Amino acid sequence: MNTTLNTATTTAAAATQVRPVPVAAIDRILDLAFAEDNPRGDLTADTIVPLGARASAQVRARQAGVLSGGQVFARAMKFIDPQIHVVQLVKEGQGFTAGEVLLTVDGPAASVLTAERVGLNLLQRMSAIATATAALVQLVAHTTARIADTRKTTPGLRVLERYAVRCGGGVNHRDNLSEAFMAKDNHLALFPNGPELTAALTAVRASLGHTTAMEVEVDSIEQIPAVLAAGVDVIMLDNFTAAQIPAAITLIAGRAIVEASGNISPDTVTAIAEAGVDIISSGAITHSVQAIDLGLDIVVA
Amino acid sequence: MNTTLNTATTTAAAATQVRPVPVAAIDRILDLAFAEDNPRGDLTADTIVPLGARASAQVRARQAGVLSGGQVFARAMKFIDPQIHVVQLVKEGQGFTAGEVLLTVDGPAASVLTAERVGLNLLQRMSAIATATAALVQLVAHTTARIADTRKTTPGLRVLERYAVRCGGGVNHRDNLSEAFMAKDNHLALFPNGPELTAALTAVRASLGHTTAMEVEVDSIEQIPAVLAAGVDVIMLDNFTAAQIPAAITLIAGRAIVEASGNISPDTVTAIAEAGVDIISSGAITHSVQAIDLGLDIVVA
Amino acid sequence: MNTTLNTATTTAAAATQVRPVPVAAIDRILDLAFAEDNPRGDLTADTIVPLGARASAQVRARQAGVLSGGQVFARAMKFIDPQIHVVQLVKEGQGFTAGEVLLTVDGPAASVLTAERVGLNLLQRMSAIATATAALVQLVAHTTARIADTRKTTPGLRVLERYAVRCGGGVNHRDNLSEAFMAKDNHLALFPNGPELTAALTAVRASLGHTTAMEVEVDSIEQIPAVLAAGVDVIMLDNFTAAQIPAAITLIAGRAIVEASGNISPDTVTAIAEAGVDIISSGAITHSVQAIDLGLDIVVA
Amino acid sequence: MNTTLNTATTTAAAATQVRPVPVAAIDRILDLAFAEDNPRGDLTADTIVPLGARASAQVRARQAGVLSGGQVFARAMKFIDPQIHVVQLVKEGQGFTAGEVLLTVDGPAASVLTAERVGLNLLQRMSAIATATAALVQLVAHTTARIADTRKTTPGLRVLERYAVRCGGGVNHRDNLSEAFMAKDNHLALFPNGPELTAALTAVRASLGHTTAMEVEVDSIEQIPAVLAAGVDVIMLDNFTAAQIPAAITLIAGRAIVEASGNISPDTVTAIAEAGVDIISSGAITHSVQAIDLGLDIVVA
Amino acid sequence: MNTTLNTATTTAAAATQVRPVPVAAIDRILDLAFAEDNPRGDLTADTIVPLGARASAQVRARQAGVLSGGQVFARAMKFIDPQIHVVQLVKEGQGFTAGEVLLTVDGPAASVLTAERVGLNLLQRMSAIATATAALVQLVAHTTARIADTRKTTPGLRVLERYAVRCGGGVNHRDNLSEAFMAKDNHLALFPNGPELTAALTAVRASLGHTTAMEVEVDSIEQIPAVLAAGVDVIMLDNFTAAQIPAAITLIAGRAIVEASGNISPDTVTAIAEAGVDIISSGAITHSVQAIDLGLDIVVA
Amino acid sequence: MNTTLNTATTTAAAATQVRPVPVAAIDRILDLAFAEDNPRGDLTADTIVPLGARASAQVRARQAGVLSGGQVFARAMKFIDPQIHVVQLVKEGQGFTAGEVLLTVDGPAASVLTAERVGLNLLQRMSAIATATAALVQLVAHTTARIADTRKTTPGLRVLERYAVRCGGGVNHRDNLSEAFMAKDNHLALFPNGPELTAALTAVRASLGHTTAMEVEVDSIEQIPAVLAAGVDVIMLDNFTAAQIPAAITLIAGRAIVEASGNISPDTVTAIAEAGVDIISSGAITHSVQAIDLGLDIVVA
Repeated sequence: MNTTLNTATTTAAAATQVRPVPVAAIDRILDLAFAEDNPRGDLTADTIVPLGARASAQVRARQAGVLSGGQVFARAMKFIDPQIHVVQLVKEGQGFTAGEVLLTVDGPAASVLTAERVGLNLLQRMSAIATATAALVQLVAHTTARIADTRKTTPGLRVLERYAVRCGGGVNHRDNLSEAFMAKDNHLALFPNGPELTAALTAVRASLGHTTAMEVEVDSIEQIPAVLAAGVDVIMLDNFTAAQIPAAITLIAGRAIVEASGNISPDTVTAIAEAGVDIISSGAITHSVQAIDLGLDIVVA
Repeated sequence: MNTTLNTATTTAAAATQVRPVPVAAIDRILDLAFAEDNPRGDLTADTIVPLGARASAQVRARQAGVLSGGQVFARAMKFIDPQIHVVQLVKEGQGFTAGEVLLTVDGPAASVLTAERVGLNLLQRMSAIATATAALVQLVAHTTARIADTRKTTPGLRVLERYAVRCGGGVNHRDNLSEAFMAKDNHLALFPNGPELTAALTAVRASLGHTTAMEVEVDSIEQIPAVLAAGVDVIMLDNFTAAQIPAAITLIAGRAIVEASGNISPDTVTAIAEAGVDIISSGAITHSVQAIDLGLDIVVA
Repeated sequence: MNTTLNTATTTAAAATQVRPVPVAAIDRILDLAFAEDNPRGDLTADTIVPLGARASAQVRARQAGVLSGGQVFARAMKFIDPQIHVVQLVKEGQGFTAGEVLLTVDGPAASVLTAERVGLNLLQRMSAIATATAALVQLVAHTTARIADTRKTTPGLRVLERYAVRCGGGVNHRDNLSEAFMAKDNHLALFPNGPELTAALTAVRASLGHTTAMEVEVDSIEQIPAVLAAGVDVIMLDNFTAAQIPAAITLIAGRAIVEASGNISPDTVTAIAEAGVDIISSGAITHSVQAIDLGLDIVVA
Repeated sequence: MNTTLNTATTTAAAATQVRPVPVAAIDRILDLAFAEDNPRGDLTADTIVPLGARASAQVRARQAGVLSGGQVFARAMKFIDPQIHVVQLVKEGQGFTAGEVLLTVDGPAASVLTAERVGLNLLQRMSAIATATAALVQLVAHTTARIADTRKTTPGLRVLERYAVRCGGGVNHRDNLSEAFMAKDNHLALFPNGPELTAALTAVRASLGHTTAMEVEVDSIEQIPAVLAAGVDVIMLDNFTAAQIPAAITLIAGRAIVEASGNISPDTVTAIAEAGVDIISSGAITHSVQAIDLGLDIVVA
Repeated sequence: MNTTLNTATTTAAAATQVRPVPVAAIDRILDLAFAEDNPRGDLTADTIVPLGARASAQVRARQAGVLSGGQVFARAMKFIDPQIHVVQLVKEGQGFTAGEVLLTVDGPAASVLTAERVGLNLLQRMSAIATATAALVQLVAHTTARIADTRKTTPGLRVLERYAVRCGGGVNHRDNLSEAFMAKDNHLALFPNGPELTAALTAVRASLGHTTAMEVEVDSIEQIPAVLAAGVDVIMLDNFTAAQIPAAITLIAGRAIVEASGNISPDTVTAIAEAGVDIISSGAITHSVQAIDLGLDIVVA
Repeated sequence: MNTTLNTATTTAAAATQVRPVPVAAIDRILDLAFAEDNPRGDLTADTIVPLGARASAQVRARQAGVLSGGQVFARAMKFIDPQIHVVQLVKEGQGFTAGEVLLTVDGPAASVLTAERVGLNLLQRMSAIATATAALVQLVAHTTARIADTRKTTPGLRVLERYAVRCGGGVNHRDNLSEAFMAKDNHLALFPNGPELTAALTAVRASLGHTTAMEVEVDSIEQIPAVLAAGVDVIMLDNFTAAQIPAAITLIAGRAIVEASGNISPDTVTAIAEAGVDIISSGAITHSVQAIDLGLDIVVA
């Protein structure tokens, strides 16, 4: 997604603290990232940088966006060298403009340069997700619809990408296959619609715990009655146009949360939200973002 | 990057086998991916899918592109259930059109549905990278320039993303900080240009093995003589316009490989290639691709 | 817990397949278990057992119970030696009597003896949990109450212990801190009851996804109105006696699921269920079971 | 095991420091435990606890017992937040009474609540094992018999459970299959008793290092001579009654350490010890304990 | 160590099966080894070897020795490609001469070449250890002394190096710090010799399990009485000359196993063994061996 | 290799800082090493060392050599106990004499003794490699030849062994199969010499990135023209005698770097270097070193 954002705006998320990621989860990702990028030492920084040289640096935005990942960036720096000191100037979930300094970094020059790429790779991706989310959130802010993510995240980075969605003011869908029941078209294709589906869903309900949500995706309004009859918590309208949604909402009549999904974009999201759904979920905010352009520049003292 | 591709074309890479990824490396990524997405079992497939149900499914392209990740997708299926059988219809590095069936899948229905998302997440991202790479490769095919990647990859997935670049007909830059010497603007900022830089680079050369390449990035033509004097292998022209490149090439005069980088896009790549550089490296082909739209659809027998 | 069980009974769970544990999750546990128990080889089996000796063995119950862990036991055998063949005679979730043969094992004698202890340790613990769960389930079978587990599981084995609860006919509570909201006495102690609590809970709701349940634990009926006002999904009555529960249920009036917890035992569970709660959760079924007495005996041919 | 304990007593182990567990071993277990319980953050503490709130808390015993795991509990708190400060009031291996405060905890309130369950799960289990061990130790204190554990421990937690046995005043049997030779009934079933067994054991001795103990389990006194003839270090009398033991001891006549095992309980242990054995090993002290009831309560300042 | 070996001789170990290493332990080492040597694919084999080419190869000795590691080598081949087939012609623990073919390998040529180096690195080192051990074993074969290893092994490879010692006909000392008590000069330096030492050792005995051996190292005959008085299992004579040993043995008089250690070499070992010790332990057989020269040669069909 | 070294000499490497190993890489190795050597606690130090005892100790050389691994040794101490303080008296890459104190250690006595063996095992091996490397480096110091390592390193320790080579004044060859192209005799055996080989190598070049070196090993001068024609970066003369080398160098005429390998020893290296090669690579400096004899001695205060 490549969207314009009103950068004067700060996401609702930033008004309070965004729910954080466990430090141990961040560290597991950084351990893999540096094993990948710095397996045996930095041939460049460890040879060309004068011994003892220190550096001050700034992470500066080259385009507007919403920040996510400042803590991850700082922890990446500390992973390489605990002597590096990072100050975050823009808060998680806060908007920034092109040219703005987001973080400052001070410490041994070789260490800063070794940590730079991993830190930026994560910060740029997370901020891109926060920015794409915030763009959708802004477009539906006048409605009661909320923007949610999906499981279409980068394998291994879901915990960070979900956090970035929260930074952008979105909420998180079920995290994984073990957390909630969610039948999609491919599941429903396995048996006929109608009473048989109702019975199957009702049997599932009995086997699940009381804190586990059940959601069913429907392709057409005809599928809704059998699903509703089973008392599911959420009905997802897949690829419904804004025009098709109101009839579905009328039929559901408050007996389930209504989610819309499928080809959500800045062009379509407002009409869908105005049609009255509760949740709009988008895969593109995690799987198709363009990295926010950020640069780390050494400030020569 | 969001580029149009002449889908009739197959990348040069596909003509022969693309250099593969070690199976152990794929499996390490899949182990993490499924620990993330399926930590305790699939609440949906394991409850709603009739016991013993089998499924045939097709992975179909909803847009044109170049394939990468078929083996990874198949291995994801096998990770969940060795009974799943996958047939790859389009070869790695080969172009496909919208609507084309890329792979077929047969096996226990619940297992196929459990593995689907991880498999698609990787296949869609890898194919997106191959497609973006192939688009640039096509645009420079009439020149001697080659398209290379950078270290701006997704932490943890570099080995797959680099492979996807190869599928698209590109070549791989140094894989990590330990593999080659590469001084960038932030390194050079630490001491004055001129003889001091030449001396420093020369000293580095003596400490590095004979299979280790040295590359230096320059921002302006003025920096080139001091770098050349040190006998580096590659000079990278950072953010040079196509108009600025010929003078640099003339100055270098074959004494180093010439790489161009910085804001490479389908709009600019042809002119830069025609200006005579040997290598054009792009971060966007890995950090800013839009997932190729693919769908797995159960074929009801 | 040490309870008598009507062994003629088979749990409802056994009537259909119990939702299984991912094989990868089992294997991760077995890998740790054998690294712990067999780090450098079996000094006994690898020296005293005649080379090439094969063994047939039976896993026999020395007390009645409900089976859980047969697949885990079989996989433990295969972990040590793929040539071992295991046949499970009693299904997961099915009751067995003292003296009954549960599984048969055939294979290289040394391998069977090396794998025996890890296999039995898991099978005995899992069956103990299934048995304790089934005992409670039987006692409430005439009501609509369901038996659930808690987070009071053995660190590292939760996925297996939760599965054992399902084998016993119970359902699973939220799996972990990241899966559902659940405020307990220690959380509520941090601010006054009343509108402030309602406001806090309402704010939390807005930050959580639509598939995430909210549950609040109350110590007294006085706490219920403020919690209900926030629209939580579940209210947990902590340490309420059976006599105190009806008033709470009347007050809640169907607006939330009602869970009872605290000192649940075979002595108290029936009355609590009959008082009308929806869910009864017990820590003892996972943290305080006595291993089911099982023995593996070599059958000399 | 569910035993009453004279809580005025402190185990012999507590008189000096109990041999500790390596910190790295504790941390590996905590890393798994929190990956399991807190994979993506604490939905409750991270939302409902006021930012910056600090908590003082007490871990209080709700029943008498012997403490084990205070260091593990403290390290669990530090794992989540290095700012948490824990003071252990009752020493490892020391008895406590119902109502006694065992540890105090101070730190950020959200962090304390996030770490609570993992910390308590381990502390309750370890203290249960120490308590069950101490109960047996007390019952044989007037004899020369010592209480030992077995390999019937929870997979993954053996190092902690063995330490808990030491806290209770017990000693540790061989840790794993690679540490000592121990032939059991299933091994002996593979060839006839008599000279063939003696020869086999003698051959094994020659293959083992000089610090490796050899132990053989016998079911009847008839098996002893052939075993003794091989010069084993330990003979284990399996399921011998107290009445059957003296004849065996007379026969062995000091040429091997004598161990008793099989259905050891508080009811039987004293008579077995008085019969003159050196070691009494019990699986129940690790596989069948009831968690000691402990509570962590926030102290509102 | 660099010793000549009578290659006609086969070690006693080879007469029966050498106690093996768990396959899981081998695989953990191979996983690390190939992550190190083949992180992203074999740039050479995967490009220059014709697609579909198969290779037959022989592992041939370029010097005499004793084989160890054939199974590890074969497993390394299978790790890269399950299609590779390995036949081991010389058994573990058997001697070979210069020029002898030890194993044959058949399979896809690229895979064989990718696996070659890791396989050979382990096979050459393990065979070197077996050979050095066998050389010492031969020199003491006419005595009752046995050759043992120490903890001076390569970090991470101890399980393989210990196995190699067994292949050479040696036995294994305690595996690690947790397996047996062994006080050395640095421990004894912490308090005065005499009754205080006896008391300390006696107290330790009471805290250790009955299968745990106690060994004390002495530098002079004067230290022996206090150690013997504590009833230790083994006394190690550190750096005693062959001439000094008999007096120590006379003093010990069968009350403890006698071990000699310190500067054991082919030049000194015979005299030390003839002096009457039970065990001779050598660090050099693991920490200072020269890799056995082996080559893998493709046999062009 | 067992070589005499002029210990007055310090390697060129020591004149500046030797390029270090990432701390995370060291820690991964230490974590494995201590899991292997101290899985459940130190039975000796944790029982016999008086509580609270502190120790000062010295690591002293018992033979001359070149130091490598001081940082690794210090980190091993810290791994066991952060309270241990290590001072390194001899720098990495600096020569030392027999009897010289290399490091001093202060801290809790039990902790120092627990960490001792792992620390010394690594320090002794790394210093042995640095010493063997430095011996070769000294012998060729009057030439332009440089000494390089190979992939014949200990599996799992390559990153440390390569660093030790640098400490000895050597340089590192390609680190692994993924880093550079290197065709050996077994690769070349797969197709005929001549134009076919030139064509194959040329095709490979097109598939590799511009920072990836290509090297080909030749057994005879006849193979050189076809290799040179493909424009490879390095030609390795395998087992060429010093007398055979000049003709090869004349033929290559500066068009490729010339490496010599095969049976490099202190006896042969000088003549080979004087024959004019650029690089001399030796497997023996990593696979066949004798551990430098170092001792840690407690200094009784």
